[in-house]
Amino acid sequence: MTLERLAIVGTGLIGASIGLAAKRAGIRAVVGFDASRESLAVARERGAIDEGAPSLEHALREAEVAVVATPVSSLPAQVEAALRASDDGCTVTDVGSTKTGITRAVSDRRRFIGGHPVCGSEAHGPLHASGELFEGATWFLTPVAETDPERYRILHAFVTSLGAVPVAVDARAHDRLLALTSHLPHALANLLLNHAGSLRVEGHEPLAAAGGSLRDMTRVAGANPRIWVDIFLDNADELGRALVEHRRRVEELERALDERDAGFLARWIGEAAGNRRRLLDVAYADPGEIQRLRVHVPDRPGVLSSS
Amino acid sequence: MTLERLAIVGTGLIGASIGLAAKRAGIRAVVGFDASRESLAVARERGAIDEGAPSLEHALREAEVAVVATPVSSLPAQVEAALRASDDGCTVTDVGSTKTGITRAVSDRRRFIGGHPVCGSEAHGPLHASGELFEGATWFLTPVAETDPERYRILHAFVTSLGAVPVAVDARAHDRLLALTSHLPHALANLLLNHAGSLRVEGHEPLAAAGGSLRDMTRVAGANPRIWVDIFLDNADELGRALVEHRRRVEELERALDERDAGFLARWIGEAAGNRRRLLDVAYADPGEIQRLRVHVPDRPGVLSSS
Repeated sequence: MTLERLAIVGTGLIGASIGLAAKRAGIRAVVGFDASRESLAVARERGAIDEGAPSLEHALREAEVAVVATPVSSLPAQVEAALRASDDGCTVTDVGSTKTGITRAVSDRRRFIGGHPVCGSEAHGPLHASGELFEGATWFLTPVAETDPERYRILHAFVTSLGAVPVAVDARAHDRLLALTSHLPHALANLLLNHAGSLRVEGHEPLAAAGGSLRDMTRVAGANPRIWVDIFLDNADELGRALVEHRRRVEELERALDERDAGFLARWIGEAAGNRRRLLDVAYADPGEIQRLRVHVPDRPGVLSSS
Repeated sequence: MTLERLAIVGTGLIGASIGLAAKRAGIRAVVGFDASRESLAVARERGAIDEGAPSLEHALREAEVAVVATPVSSLPAQVEAALRASDDGCTVTDVGSTKTGITRAVSDRRRFIGGHPVCGSEAHGPLHASGELFEGATWFLTPVAETDPERYRILHAFVTSLGAVPVAVDARAHDRLLALTSHLPHALANLLLNHAGSLRVEGHEPLAAAGGSLRDMTRVAGANPRIWVDIFLDNADELGRALVEHRRRVEELERALDERDAGFLARWIGEAAGNRRRLLDVAYADPGEIQRLRVHVPDRPGVLSSS
């Protein structure tokens, strides 16, 4: 069962990529709206939308699903506006990197279901959009007790049609997961680079002596401040908790180094080697395998199995 | 002025790569010695050495330069053995990732000059050796006050002939630089992966939800424990100091998150963006540019300019 009509609010990189994937999936009408006329025009030229709407109301008219893909800080307001501008036939979702705030703030918990595709690119804007962006990627959905099961089913099928692997998760658990797998790595990349970049060692610049490990570890450092300040702030509590635990682990390592504890270091590196293999196994398996491994449904009334 | 005769003690990945690069540079006789007959045979088959010597003494006979490329923990003993087994005509160097310990331990500070090519590979063994491994790479040399200037000149020319960029640096400064640019990144990769890998969030495995940033940041995690335990132990003091400063920076970030300090976060990300650009600029410029930027000579008697 394919959607007939999809609305995309915000036609940047993610919004336009959803449009391209939706057209590929055979959705008949994809209507876009963006405050930037230029962004809308580029999305149209790229074939990511069939039509650029002159207003939000226009874009949402008769849409079965509306995806709000605007920056994190504007999401609560944009989601509310989309709920107001659409009628009961329209299910609203978003693509924000944090889910607790929006899930708590939203007024209509039957009609809104949070979403987050785990993918992206250093690039931004509809010019860099790709219909393959979601191929095999985890797409978190955060249904709540009040979620309308039929709407969840529609969204699950829609996300699957884009090539992604829908994974139902509690909003708070989502933010804790993302703090560990995305926000903490981003923070450490920034910390590491600003640490090495701030020092001179007897006239030598550490950055000039850097090898491949520092370069690879800091690929995401300094990424798009406009987006990342909001993500860090929005997930400040969970990221803060992850940083506290990180410091505890750093102190543990410092003790092992102080005590020249070769046994600890060997076990610790061995554990990392095992985790690295596991990461490559589970995070980049083929989509079928991922589906089997990842799908987990919160044990709550009103939430359907996602398999 | 090219060397006539080079000895390589330890024909693993680095030793055999030096051999291949040396042959390419026109060094007539490259003689190898390795406790492992197999390693020696593979190095010979690969053309990394002209001859596998039956003993250390045999390998060093008439060598003008001897490169000791055995694992870090065995270096002090191997360097001493090489000094004993060779005569005054032979300059001895090593390729260890830490320099303070070996520089302090060595008995003949005229004839031994520490070295460290900043490169490498996750692979090991002579089978993966490459004559291009050192192309454009920084090759630290750690002369001391007692260093014979003529020997330094020979080593400088030798390293240059392999395609590397020699950079003279004080041994302690070297270890501080490497703590920042290599050992801290490695430690953070392990810490991050063991942190994310040890948790379950409401039944979800963080590693399974990981995106590209975690994968790229932990490429070096769990690398060769046999080598890395020794490196961490050998540079425990400098790495420990770097970890203390890292924790201070983490606490600073925690405070900014607690206070929802958007200004701090924006400046901090902007600083990281600047450092990232700088890293890509200076660490991967063309060799001529690198030479101009990196060469720094410790202000000590008896140490030649490296330019």
